[in-house]
Formats: sequence, structure tokens, C-alpha cells
Amino acid sequence: MSKYWNSKINSATPYVAGEQPKPGQKVIKLNTNENPYPPSPKVREVLQDFDISDLRLYPNTGSDIVRDAVASVYGLSRENIFVGNGSDEVLALCWQTFFEKEYNTGKSVLVPDISYSFYPVFSSFYDVRCESVPLREDFFIDPSDYCGRDCCGIAIANPNAPTARLISLDDIRKILDSNPDVPVLIDEAYADFAEGYESAASLIGEYENLIVVMTLSKSYSLAGIRMGFAMGSSELIEGLTMARDSFNSYPGDRVAQKVAEAAILDREYWDRTRKAIIATRKWTSDELRKLGFQLTDSQANFVWAKPPAQIDAQTLYNSLKSKGILIRYFNKPSISDHVRITIGTDDEMKALIDAIREEL
Amino acid sequence: MSKYWNSKINSATPYVAGEQPKPGQKVIKLNTNENPYPPSPKVREVLQDFDISDLRLYPNTGSDIVRDAVASVYGLSRENIFVGNGSDEVLALCWQTFFEKEYNTGKSVLVPDISYSFYPVFSSFYDVRCESVPLREDFFIDPSDYCGRDCCGIAIANPNAPTARLISLDDIRKILDSNPDVPVLIDEAYADFAEGYESAASLIGEYENLIVVMTLSKSYSLAGIRMGFAMGSSELIEGLTMARDSFNSYPGDRVAQKVAEAAILDREYWDRTRKAIIATRKWTSDELRKLGFQLTDSQANFVWAKPPAQIDAQTLYNSLKSKGILIRYFNKPSISDHVRITIGTDDEMKALIDAIREEL
Repeated sequence: MSKYWNSKINSATPYVAGEQPKPGQKVIKLNTNENPYPPSPKVREVLQDFDISDLRLYPNTGSDIVRDAVASVYGLSRENIFVGNGSDEVLALCWQTFFEKEYNTGKSVLVPDISYSFYPVFSSFYDVRCESVPLREDFFIDPSDYCGRDCCGIAIANPNAPTARLISLDDIRKILDSNPDVPVLIDEAYADFAEGYESAASLIGEYENLIVVMTLSKSYSLAGIRMGFAMGSSELIEGLTMARDSFNSYPGDRVAQKVAEAAILDREYWDRTRKAIIATRKWTSDELRKLGFQLTDSQANFVWAKPPAQIDAQTLYNSLKSKGILIRYFNKPSISDHVRITIGTDDEMKALIDAIREEL
Repeated sequence: MSKYWNSKINSATPYVAGEQPKPGQKVIKLNTNENPYPPSPKVREVLQDFDISDLRLYPNTGSDIVRDAVASVYGLSRENIFVGNGSDEVLALCWQTFFEKEYNTGKSVLVPDISYSFYPVFSSFYDVRCESVPLREDFFIDPSDYCGRDCCGIAIANPNAPTARLISLDDIRKILDSNPDVPVLIDEAYADFAEGYESAASLIGEYENLIVVMTLSKSYSLAGIRMGFAMGSSELIEGLTMARDSFNSYPGDRVAQKVAEAAILDREYWDRTRKAIIATRKWTSDELRKLGFQLTDSQANFVWAKPPAQIDAQTLYNSLKSKGILIRYFNKPSISDHVRITIGTDDEMKALIDAIREEL
């Protein structure tokens, strides 16, 4: 509390990110869904060849080279792409652009009650009323829960976190068809790890109210470079641009733009590393099930696991931490019996399974 | 207008940045107050030596290596420093942290009526009531205009833009002494070009309500890297951190943090280049006065100039543009008789003076 903070900050409950090890601390870090592989080697070339005298000038406001790279991957046009300083910034701008302020409406944005915990934080911070829609049993999102509702918008992570569950494009269509008058946001941060899933970006030509958000922090292994993007109709992208230019005209720096472009266009490396993670996820899931864990069918780069009766989730989290393995535990009623474990390298996951076996 | 935008975006009037030349277009660019010199050569070393495998991990949230570099320069502690994605983001977060929402107060934030045009944009976007305080004759900020006022905060650029005028630390003290209960923001984007001025950061130990904002885009020649910072009491910095964590936890990417640290710590290069710009500013000002221009006493890396009777500001802007020289013209009643000209290299300014001489 401070008399120099406004009432919004004095009542804020900020997002809490997963803990970061101290510099030099040696841990197996499976707690913030980072990619265990380095980014594309093309990124090294970008840094080596960069002409630093370019840095004296402001960057292109739109990060157009990144927009063009994204457009080529998803079969869209530059006008369908918005680039920001990480997908958190992009999501925050979506909240500021698409969802109506509470003082103007009685309507809520609908979000799953177990999902990315930044959604309710954005809602509160930007004066948007937020309704948490309960998941169905076994952490399923039921699309019918989002149909026929008088809301000001919908935001769903697909695959959802921390549950790792995927809904189908048909389910997304159902939600879009039932909500033609409000923006529907699909957060695909983990979608590149889903098997047999085509991005909801493929529906953009059909639905003017669809906005799909994506990050370079996961499947492109660039959490350290802070780049994310949104895809949607040119009308929605124009709205995001208005919000950006009311806040910070140059979110993407010159180095980050070139790094992102290079990583996005290296399709071979992207495909190879995401497939490696999918394979390791399968091995890890099998091993955890053999040890008595209950898992959802993960379509992300992490698993959502309920430990067997011998050990509760919090004890497991603490004992692994004492062995130098960080996983994520959420001290929140409906999910405190699970842990979220990021998929690392094969060696890291073998070390994890060995450590868990010791505990049991 | 779009039915998918909320009412805030549907009524937004975003900030308009100075025009950027198209890639490959050869111009003398004196319109967005960029530094004509490349950044410190230490920046090249950072990019050459960067280990790209670090990019797979999220960065330090606070950009602590940058905070420590800033602290060492200004004689402060890490707790007094907040780092963001350009000073525009830092300013926007200040608006969201320190100035009360209009729906909670009848009070305004006071800003000079001629100043950085992002201030009223932030005010409108974040629901802060904003009062424009007229400058005195010849574009002076009179501190007494900001004393004894029942406001929710004050924001002043020093040196001010586009007027290039500086107020003294004594003037800032007067404003702080008269406003102990509200935050006072001093935007020092151009302060490194002021002669004999000590940063208002030197007053932070005395005034808990003082926040000083600074950018790396001007005196550090890093407009392309998007780094800015705020300095203030730990209480104010904690508030900014709350706002950041309600919006985007990782604003500074790993490359930008190292680049910024290196540039800030290379004091010799920083001092040499800013002194070169100050010298060129003196030469340019003298030459423009000889040609009949009226200038304020510039303490920034640009001059604020009223052309002689032979030519009006807009005509001068257009004719220089046709010759490949971009300067800034503001089509706004009280300042449309002036132009703002960034200080470039000696050669660029000679070309400018020659081009103007041709016009007259």
C-alpha cells in the first residue's frame, strides 16, 4: 500500500511467474514450460552479422519482417498479423482492445476457471468483468458451456494450461458460431506440440471475430527474446494497433525482430525439435503412469499429473526441489493435488523419473 | 470503428510517431531525435559473444543487470530503478501506477500544453483526467503554475520537447515542495544533452514522490533496442513492478538487457558522443540564427526554430523533404509556425544549412 499508488495498484493481485534459479545455480528446470533445446542456429547468424549502427534508429513499429514470416507459415497476409513484446503483451493488448470495460457493460469475458492465471489478472487490471467457467470432469473444456451466453468475449487456451488438454477445431467452430457478435480469443501458446491439430488460424477467413494468439517462447525456444503474435481479421488487427499506439509504438526491438524472423522461417529445425519434445512427452507420460501417476492426455510441452497415494503433490514438489529439480505446484484448491512438469531433454526426464522413483 | 473493439479503442486517438523512411530510402533523418552516432562498440562485443542457448529461458524479470548499471551511474541502489521496454512503456506504466483513474477522483494530472504528445494519449487511454497547463511566453515552463494546485499528479519533460527548454533543479524542488502528496514525474529523455544540469535523480533521497524517467534511445544511441528506465524511491518502484506484473512480467529481453548494460557502463563513449552533439547543436543554432531563424536556447539533441518571414514552417518542411531531408513539423495551432530539427552529424547539419539557404 502506498499513498502514491492509485487505487488500481493498491488493490492489484499481480501474476506470479514460476521461480527462476539464481545465476550459476545448477537445476533441472521443468517449471516454466521452456524448451530444452537451443533456438535455431540461424539465430546465431543473426547476432553475428548484426550491424550495430542500425540500433541508433527506431525499429519498424509493426515488426513487419516478423509479420511476413508468420503470414508465410500460416498462409495469411501481413494485415492479419500483430506482433508484440511476448504473447503476454499481446494478450494484455487483446484485453484492452476487445473486451468491454465493466463500467460500460454488465457483461463478462468468459474464461475457463482452470487456465492461464494471467487472464483474471488482465481482467481486473483493465476493468473487464471476468467469469470463470468451470471445467468438466477430468479437466475437459466443454464448448457448450461457452454457447448461448450473453458475454462480452471469450478467451480459451488451447491446449489449455496447466491441464494440457486440447479441444478440436470443431469445438472452436461451435463456440464461434454461437458467438458471432463478440471477439473469441484462442491462445495457442502450446499448439505446436499438439498432434494432428491444425491451428485455429485456419478459420480466420471464415470468422471476423476470431483472434488467435501465439508465442515464440515455447516451440521456437525463444522465451528470452520476448516475441509473440496475434492473428485475425484485418479489422481485429487494426484494433490492436490502435491500442499499441496508445501505449508504446515500438514494442519489437531491431535485434528481436531479426531473431524472430530467422527462427520462424527455419521450419526444419522447428519441426525436428517439437517432434523430439512430443516423443519425450510420450516416454515421460508412460513412465509416470507406470509409477501410479494419473495424467491427462497431454498435447502440450508439459504434463499434468496427479501423484499416486503414497505422496501428495506439494511434498513431491518440495522433495524434487531439494534434489535440484524444479517442477510447478499450484497452491490453489481445485488443482493442489496435481503438479505440472515441463518436458525437458531425454536425460532430464530420466533424472526426474529416477528421482521420483526414489521418493515413492 | 468496429463492433469488435471496445468503446475505449473506438474513441482512441493514438500517438503518431515521426515518419520512418522506407528500407533502402536514402534520407538525412532529422525528424525523430535519434542519435547520429552508432552505439558504443561494446554493443558489438555483446552480440558477437552472446550464447544463443540462453535464449531458450525466460529473462530476469527486472532486468537486474541494467538496474545495477543505472544505479552505479546515478549513485542509487537497485531498489530505486525500474526497467521497461523503452521509456514509452515506462511512462505508460507510470500513468497506470501513479495517476488516479478519473472515475475515482475529480483531480487531474497536470502536463504542459506543449510537450510530449504521448502524455494526453496515455491519460485518455488509462482513464486519467489530464489538464494541459499553458507554457509562458517563449515556451517557458513556469514552476509556479504547478504549485498550490489540487491535482492527482504532475508530469513534465525536462528538457521539454519540442521546445528544447530546460528548467532548473531549483524549479523542480519548488514543484516537489508544493506537492508532497502526489507523484511528480520528470521525463529526462533529453537531459544528457543539457549543459550544467544534474539529473533530478539526485533529489530522490529527499523526495519520496519523485519519479524520473530516462531512455536509452537518445544519448545512448539505442532507439532500436527499446530500453528505458525509471528512478525513484523504492516505494514508487514497487508500485511500477506491481503494474508490470499485472501486464507483462518480462519486458526486457536477454539480448537487450546485455546490450543496455554494456552501453550504460561505457561512460567514455557516452560522454564523447553527447559532447559532439552539443557542439554540433551550437554550430547549427548559430547558423540558423544567421539565416534569420528564432530559436529557443536548446538543451536537447534538437532545436526548436521559427523560420524567418520569407518562408513558413510547413513550406520549409515540405521543401526539405523533397530534397531528402526529413525534419519534424507539427500541424497544431500554437506550434505550427515552428519546426523541430534533430541534431545530426556535422556533415548532415551542413547539408541542412545549405539546403535552407537555397530555399530562402
